[in-house]
Amino acid sequence: MQQAIAILDSGVGGLTVVKEVMRQLPREKIIYFGDTARTPYGPRPSEEVKKFTEQMVDFLIQFDPKVIIIACNTATAAALDYISQKVSIPVIGVIHPGARAAISATATGHVGVIGTVGTIRSGAYTAALKQLSPYVDVVSHACPALVPLVEQGLFRSKTTSQVVEETLRPIQTYPIDCLILGCTHYPFLKETIQEVMGPAVKLISSADETARETSTILYNKGKLEAGDETPVHQLFCSGDPELFQRIAAQWLGEQIRQTPVVWQVTNLD
Amino acid sequence: MQQAIAILDSGVGGLTVVKEVMRQLPREKIIYFGDTARTPYGPRPSEEVKKFTEQMVDFLIQFDPKVIIIACNTATAAALDYISQKVSIPVIGVIHPGARAAISATATGHVGVIGTVGTIRSGAYTAALKQLSPYVDVVSHACPALVPLVEQGLFRSKTTSQVVEETLRPIQTYPIDCLILGCTHYPFLKETIQEVMGPAVKLISSADETARETSTILYNKGKLEAGDETPVHQLFCSGDPELFQRIAAQWLGEQIRQTPVVWQVTNLD
Repeated sequence: MQQAIAILDSGVGGLTVVKEVMRQLPREKIIYFGDTARTPYGPRPSEEVKKFTEQMVDFLIQFDPKVIIIACNTATAAALDYISQKVSIPVIGVIHPGARAAISATATGHVGVIGTVGTIRSGAYTAALKQLSPYVDVVSHACPALVPLVEQGLFRSKTTSQVVEETLRPIQTYPIDCLILGCTHYPFLKETIQEVMGPAVKLISSADETARETSTILYNKGKLEAGDETPVHQLFCSGDPELFQRIAAQWLGEQIRQTPVVWQVTNLD
Repeated sequence: MQQAIAILDSGVGGLTVVKEVMRQLPREKIIYFGDTARTPYGPRPSEEVKKFTEQMVDFLIQFDPKVIIIACNTATAAALDYISQKVSIPVIGVIHPGARAAISATATGHVGVIGTVGTIRSGAYTAALKQLSPYVDVVSHACPALVPLVEQGLFRSKTTSQVVEETLRPIQTYPIDCLILGCTHYPFLKETIQEVMGPAVKLISSADETARETSTILYNKGKLEAGDETPVHQLFCSGDPELFQRIAAQWLGEQIRQTPVVWQVTNLD
């Protein structure tokens, strides 16, 4: 029986990590949980986010996964250390991979970070960047208006452009050469964000980078799947399974042969 | 006492990894060994490369490093598994990081690899790429003429352009969208290689990617340096220390305050 990669998120945002794991590690089976009934996590108190994250981990751990990815920046900031101590398998958050990629990508040392209120308030990106290099200069900005756009499936629209433009205005005055998309929902809006920021600013997707580091960690533990069996993925959410399925089908379209069934779990707590 | 990152190579090529480690992890102390007396490794039998690599490891392990980077593709292909079993600290090769970065970067799935005769003959890149994804299409090409250019310090010259152009001609007929620089010497020639391949082909430096994965692995082991002390690096080589020092000063120029002393070790075997 193939051991899976478990991925959890506050909602559909973690599907950006799922898409990249499917692309970079097509042999691996994925089990996903999106807490769509309680999204967004960004404005919630840290203790509550920690509790919700633990409930998802308790659910996913039953499937005996080989690794858990906390594919939500808010949950990573609130619960990564706690969950890492609680379970005996590797737990990967999305903040450090994004920070490492930005350090690797920046030429000027001026790095921008956007994220939810919870992520930005935690200072976790700044700490991760400064832990790596004292020479990096970080400017961060909370963007609470962006997650709701994605959870409604509004990836490209006039409203989307307007909201993104208004939201990013404060960060445009800084001379950054790369911008960390410090929320796994943001890659859904990548084209619009790139248009607004201009071509000189390199966007770093913490989602893409986390998929890549998962590959690194599984390789170094000798845990990469070797077989040629097509993996059967499993998707779970706590809210409306039809909306979730529609977004999953639209976003994962190229990666999956058929729209996966989405199971709704309503008694997480 | 700060534990160092030990880096070894057949000659000066590993300095491309050193430069990136200095940039991405400026708090870390580096101890480097370049086997310049016996370079190039590319055309040598695999068993001989394995023996030479082991001799460098035996030298470096005396300094109690926290990780060893085999910053040479030929040596990685020949000796990574052997050295990993021999020592109790993590050993990082340059092949898998390059392969993972290429899988992450390619849009079409057509990936090119250039390297020494030894690296290409080993098939190690193709194996690493195929281990990650069965959908990737790999074309590889040995370029024995490039390492001697770098070991002589000819980074940018008319000869360099001519040799690079002639060397890369066979691979230009393939529809690749990224090319792995599967030899740590090649980043010295990056500008010329990019000119010859054209802007549509993304160059993947196994050196840069290895520095980044070292950051990932040290973080996950809780072994990143936390202090603000300026690290004092140590450089060793087996051949002419003056030529080595000149190349090191030229290549690492921006990263180091003063030209480091280079110690010559002549009795490795």
